[in-house]
Amino acid sequence: MSTPLDYLNEHQETFKEELFKLLRIPSISADPAHKEDVHSAAKYVAGQLERIGLNNVSIEETDGHPIVLAEHLEAGPDKPTVLIYGHYDVQPPDPLDEWKTPPFEPTVRDGKIYARGASDDKGQSFAHIKAIESFLKTGTELPVNVKFIIEGEEEIGSPSLVPFLAANKERLACDMVLVSDTAMFAKDTPSITYGLRGLMYLEVTVTGPNRDLHSGVYGGGVQNPVNALCEMIAKLKDENGVVQIPGFYDNVRPLTEKEREAYAQLPFDQEAYNKELDIDEAFGEKGYSTLERVSGRPSLDVNGIWGGYQGEGAKTVLPGKAGAKISTRLVPDQEPKEIFHLIDAYMQEIKPPGVRIDVREHHGGHPVLVDLDFYGLKAAAAAFEDVYGKQALFSREGGSIPIVADFAKTLNATTILMGLGLNSDSIHSPNEHFHLKDFERGMKTSARFFELLGDYVE
Amino acid sequence: MSTPLDYLNEHQETFKEELFKLLRIPSISADPAHKEDVHSAAKYVAGQLERIGLNNVSIEETDGHPIVLAEHLEAGPDKPTVLIYGHYDVQPPDPLDEWKTPPFEPTVRDGKIYARGASDDKGQSFAHIKAIESFLKTGTELPVNVKFIIEGEEEIGSPSLVPFLAANKERLACDMVLVSDTAMFAKDTPSITYGLRGLMYLEVTVTGPNRDLHSGVYGGGVQNPVNALCEMIAKLKDENGVVQIPGFYDNVRPLTEKEREAYAQLPFDQEAYNKELDIDEAFGEKGYSTLERVSGRPSLDVNGIWGGYQGEGAKTVLPGKAGAKISTRLVPDQEPKEIFHLIDAYMQEIKPPGVRIDVREHHGGHPVLVDLDFYGLKAAAAAFEDVYGKQALFSREGGSIPIVADFAKTLNATTILMGLGLNSDSIHSPNEHFHLKDFERGMKTSARFFELLGDYVE
Repeated sequence: MSTPLDYLNEHQETFKEELFKLLRIPSISADPAHKEDVHSAAKYVAGQLERIGLNNVSIEETDGHPIVLAEHLEAGPDKPTVLIYGHYDVQPPDPLDEWKTPPFEPTVRDGKIYARGASDDKGQSFAHIKAIESFLKTGTELPVNVKFIIEGEEEIGSPSLVPFLAANKERLACDMVLVSDTAMFAKDTPSITYGLRGLMYLEVTVTGPNRDLHSGVYGGGVQNPVNALCEMIAKLKDENGVVQIPGFYDNVRPLTEKEREAYAQLPFDQEAYNKELDIDEAFGEKGYSTLERVSGRPSLDVNGIWGGYQGEGAKTVLPGKAGAKISTRLVPDQEPKEIFHLIDAYMQEIKPPGVRIDVREHHGGHPVLVDLDFYGLKAAAAAFEDVYGKQALFSREGGSIPIVADFAKTLNATTILMGLGLNSDSIHSPNEHFHLKDFERGMKTSARFFELLGDYVE
Repeated sequence: MSTPLDYLNEHQETFKEELFKLLRIPSISADPAHKEDVHSAAKYVAGQLERIGLNNVSIEETDGHPIVLAEHLEAGPDKPTVLIYGHYDVQPPDPLDEWKTPPFEPTVRDGKIYARGASDDKGQSFAHIKAIESFLKTGTELPVNVKFIIEGEEEIGSPSLVPFLAANKERLACDMVLVSDTAMFAKDTPSITYGLRGLMYLEVTVTGPNRDLHSGVYGGGVQNPVNALCEMIAKLKDENGVVQIPGFYDNVRPLTEKEREAYAQLPFDQEAYNKELDIDEAFGEKGYSTLERVSGRPSLDVNGIWGGYQGEGAKTVLPGKAGAKISTRLVPDQEPKEIFHLIDAYMQEIKPPGVRIDVREHHGGHPVLVDLDFYGLKAAAAAFEDVYGKQALFSREGGSIPIVADFAKTLNATTILMGLGLNSDSIHSPNEHFHLKDFERGMKTSARFFELLGDYVE
């Protein structure tokens, strides 16, 4: 009797061909002209799920593109249930002329599959499908329950997914969500993202006089909205990079010793980082390393500012208005709404005389942090270690993946971010690719994860 | 024998008709299509100067539009020489459809002459020509020497005038320059502008990373150029509106008691000012009134700022660059070049870590201040008082008139700014006009000034 690992080893060529079929479908969710293609991709994925022996496979229509569901619950209610999330839609391939081979004609060069969606996220999603197939096709007992949810709107912000989750809580009930839609920390460096920052984005408008004034005639007698805005922004952080908004850090969960050790183990070269960005020195909150600053600590940045004359040469104007877009990246347990109110209140307090301000909320997102002791995380790390022959690292990411917070909120499920690709895979860019080696190791890691997971349940 | 005053009273209708002829010429210096018209205006002015009996009338060609010269030096070398400056070119009349009557068809309505150039500066220049005419045509001895210089490029920045002054120092030698190209402080309120602020305009560019970064991935670890720029700008002034650049005030001539008294006499309604600008309160350097702040004290304003995303909605970008245009209005004896170096040095000193800055000089202009005890100023004030029946006020203006500094520098001559029009004359706007009453009182004030000037020589 063949084991799942044998099966995976023996069918690599077939899997590649099957993935190629999916990659050939230009399922560009953002482009209405490709609506049918998106649907074809959903059908192909559903066909795969059905073919490998999953139950209740369905293509769920939404207001947008369909969501594909499937499940295999034979392990029984005593065993953990894993919801595997992925997406079959892709980014537009533009600019087309920068692709060495056409984006929807998958081609292997130097051990990499080149195609739009190869890594993001058709390839990575496929790895999990093939891992489950390796159990079902070899008659090996799948020691946990699995459910699949593969959507077609990730690249356009998953507008249908959140209401769908809310409307199908029972059907999607699970103990954890497994997502492979991020990257490993570095090449051949298996890693698990256990934290994501949240976001609070706002816009402040400063209004002074009711029109642009002549800076000679009025300069010195009337508050300048740009100067006023700059003064306010300058008061948001001190010279050590510490945010000065009262209460801002109140709910920040401090980095634990264990976390700081995990950070220290991540390969990071500050000099190379500075050089790549062409900066003389890094700057951030005193007392923390760059990696800690960009993912384990909250941050505050002006994303845009405007006011007065921006053209060539000189115009002696005292502007009537100025504005800025400002965002903070949040860590647990900072609450976006609450942070907005703190910033708003502080801005009103520090507003200089002679201007009016309007602080407007844009959007927010909750930060996510998985307990490093969560058994699913331990199983994932062990699976990585078995396949890669080296210890998996744990990292937090500075950006946000809104659906992860949605899984937590709606399904009360912890998400395991098992990145199988690389940051250098050129996702969203021309010549996107996925290393065949990563595709293969990804399937094996996934299969191993399902084998081990039962053992780790506490 | 008729006196100059009689002559002026008797010929108002003729003067109006003569001015209309000049106003009908569309001498728009900025528009190459009107080059011939500009030349025609020069010829008309020269014809007037010749007809009234001035000597050495000439139309001096330049690289641009011509300069008209004339003189009457019969008073002799013991008497003061006044150089009368004006300009016969006008602003473009656009937007044409907002004019109630065509800009180059002068029309009288409600006691006002409506036409482009009626106030700025054909009407005001004409007042001086007619004043001199009133002496020469009545055989009245002109008690001072006069020279005229009427240019045709004022509305395009007087590019030919400065080199012309330098090349004709002897010919233009004088004790003072009389300019009527500003406005009275208020209606029926004769006033003399005895000070103008200078200007130092610069641009600062802040460069951080070599590209726009994702604010989630990098936020907190890399200095943000916009935040850095705001911090620098915030350090330029303190909360009392006092400029913090070391040495900035070193050469500022303090306001004298006499000046502060003159300021206090100017009609000014802070509440109306705030209301007109729609601001809750004025703001400026502590310890000074609004009028003092906008004209007697230096100021610093951001004229424009930019960086990052300025469009609709939210973009989570950490900008690679930011910039601002900043200018200071200067008072005697601040030197624009020196102020630039002070600002540059200070900016380099306060530059936050992790960014590079570039501070670039745009242009500058020297401040001007006429000694309130200058005899020409006293004679002008006395002339105003005789004609208007009320005391002339002394005011400083917040803006700059570069040629005034040029007269001081090149001809070593003090300028008397005898504004005959009003700020409400809509100069540079549709429906520019000049009150017939102001035209008449202007001629009389000018004539009275020439009568009195000799008596005031010290």
